[in-house]
Amino acid sequence: MKNYLDKINAAIAAINYPARPADLYEPIAYTMNLGGKRLRPRLVLMTCEALGGDVDQALLPAVGLELFHNFTLLHDDVMDRADVRRGKPTVHCRWNDNVAILSGDAMLTMATQYIAKAPARHAAVVMDLYNRTAMEIYEGQQWDMDFEHRSDVSADQYLEMIRLKTSVLLGCACKMGAILADAPAVVTDKFYRVGEQLGLMFQMQDDLLDVWGDAVTFGKEIGGDIMNNKKTFLLIDAMAQATGDDALELNRWLHDSEALRDMKVPAVTAIYERLGLREQLEARMNTLAGEVKTLLDEIAMSDEARSAFISLVDNLLHRNK
Amino acid sequence: MKNYLDKINAAIAAINYPARPADLYEPIAYTMNLGGKRLRPRLVLMTCEALGGDVDQALLPAVGLELFHNFTLLHDDVMDRADVRRGKPTVHCRWNDNVAILSGDAMLTMATQYIAKAPARHAAVVMDLYNRTAMEIYEGQQWDMDFEHRSDVSADQYLEMIRLKTSVLLGCACKMGAILADAPAVVTDKFYRVGEQLGLMFQMQDDLLDVWGDAVTFGKEIGGDIMNNKKTFLLIDAMAQATGDDALELNRWLHDSEALRDMKVPAVTAIYERLGLREQLEARMNTLAGEVKTLLDEIAMSDEARSAFISLVDNLLHRNK
Repeated sequence: MKNYLDKINAAIAAINYPARPADLYEPIAYTMNLGGKRLRPRLVLMTCEALGGDVDQALLPAVGLELFHNFTLLHDDVMDRADVRRGKPTVHCRWNDNVAILSGDAMLTMATQYIAKAPARHAAVVMDLYNRTAMEIYEGQQWDMDFEHRSDVSADQYLEMIRLKTSVLLGCACKMGAILADAPAVVTDKFYRVGEQLGLMFQMQDDLLDVWGDAVTFGKEIGGDIMNNKKTFLLIDAMAQATGDDALELNRWLHDSEALRDMKVPAVTAIYERLGLREQLEARMNTLAGEVKTLLDEIAMSDEARSAFISLVDNLLHRNK
Repeated sequence: MKNYLDKINAAIAAINYPARPADLYEPIAYTMNLGGKRLRPRLVLMTCEALGGDVDQALLPAVGLELFHNFTLLHDDVMDRADVRRGKPTVHCRWNDNVAILSGDAMLTMATQYIAKAPARHAAVVMDLYNRTAMEIYEGQQWDMDFEHRSDVSADQYLEMIRLKTSVLLGCACKMGAILADAPAVVTDKFYRVGEQLGLMFQMQDDLLDVWGDAVTFGKEIGGDIMNNKKTFLLIDAMAQATGDDALELNRWLHDSEALRDMKVPAVTAIYERLGLREQLEARMNTLAGEVKTLLDEIAMSDEARSAFISLVDNLLHRNK
């Protein structure tokens, strides 16, 4: 695992940014150098190696997915007016909206250039997978924005939104690694589902950390979802399950547009805790983890490769940043 | 020519937009249905056919370039705060900035999907040309925005900016058509230069129409560049050539941030006219037209194909919209 991260970070450090125009390229280098888990490229390399592929042939397309992922964060931060990302000012705050829009566009094209570096025999299939995944991610972001103005979002609709916005890129990463290892369709499809389930777990843990995480470790302010009335599983379940005083209080906070952070976040968190929603969400995540392990058991790979995936699952379940 | 436009418009009308999320796909359909000259896809098809290629194999990549071009307009209109495009409200005005950002991103990915439909034997070369061109266009847009805050832009710097922002895409269109017709590198490179010179002419005519065009025919308000102190050739030349009272008056208008449109546009236009700048710009355009015709003479093609290009050049020289 360590080895993959070093390889990926070396390839990211080797990206060649022209010096000028500075406001086009500096924000891209800034974004890529903020660090992060590099989860998507790691999944490409892990899957490729687990299936006996050549990791070096998968490295540049893997970097392409990391560029793409960071492009989506850059533009999402403009749309969501987010000020901080990985503990640093976002591009639109440090520069301005126009710089964020245009350098994001350039990052998307750079991502496509890296995806196009897949070996010729797989280039068309990999490019098609990448583009279809990108379209799904934009759909997920649009649903996410649409849901802000709606109070009738169901748990199923939320699940589909996070599947599009987050999970399909992890599915794409695993499938890309499998394709680059020349795996047959039945295996590439199974690995897509592995990534997809990991993505759902990942998002649920994110929702959980937004409420119960530590701001310094997590790298962003706690309670953002609560302040924005964001329809995560926690809020959707709370609206469905709260009764009596809890229901009245939750409703009051949801409609109080002047609520102070120091008042609203602890109060809503207390309602979540009284309803046992943290345990419910953790149970959902454990179910997904079980499904991932079943899928992994169905795919032929070495014990070593399988345990690498299983420790990834366990790390995701227990991550705090 | 008519035939190409019908083919292109039919292929654009056949683009499949999912119904939902509506705010993601409707702005794309809206933008693509605003019409326009379809100059870039027409150049792909004209070049491909002039060199004996199969126009039908070039059609979908040609549509990809039109999608790409319209994506750049959509995002540029957000950055430039432009309200009107082709006589209709821009996407960020009719919807909002977030919708414009995200639907533009989706349009860029759709463009890439269409480019990827090039025949397999050319797919990698065409994709590489397209991505490199896209990066140059972002650079051009960034220079354009940088120049707004500078008063020391030289004519050479302006020329390089419009080459990047506008001309390289026309160069890319011609070269793509030549590649798809299996032309050798010496010919594809010559056609790139044909497109590039056409693009410079095109932008100069645009600058000219912004001052001396008819608002209704041109589809946008006249004098926008003058009001924004935009450093076109006209303004750059005026700053270099004006003396005495003209120099004082021009300087006063450039620094009068409260100037009324009805006062400033006619006054600056009069200075341009006293300096003979319209004639100077038309002379530059005629020189470029001569260079294009020389390049066309050097490329083996039927008389019919050559005259189609020559009438395109003449139409660009005399267009009023």
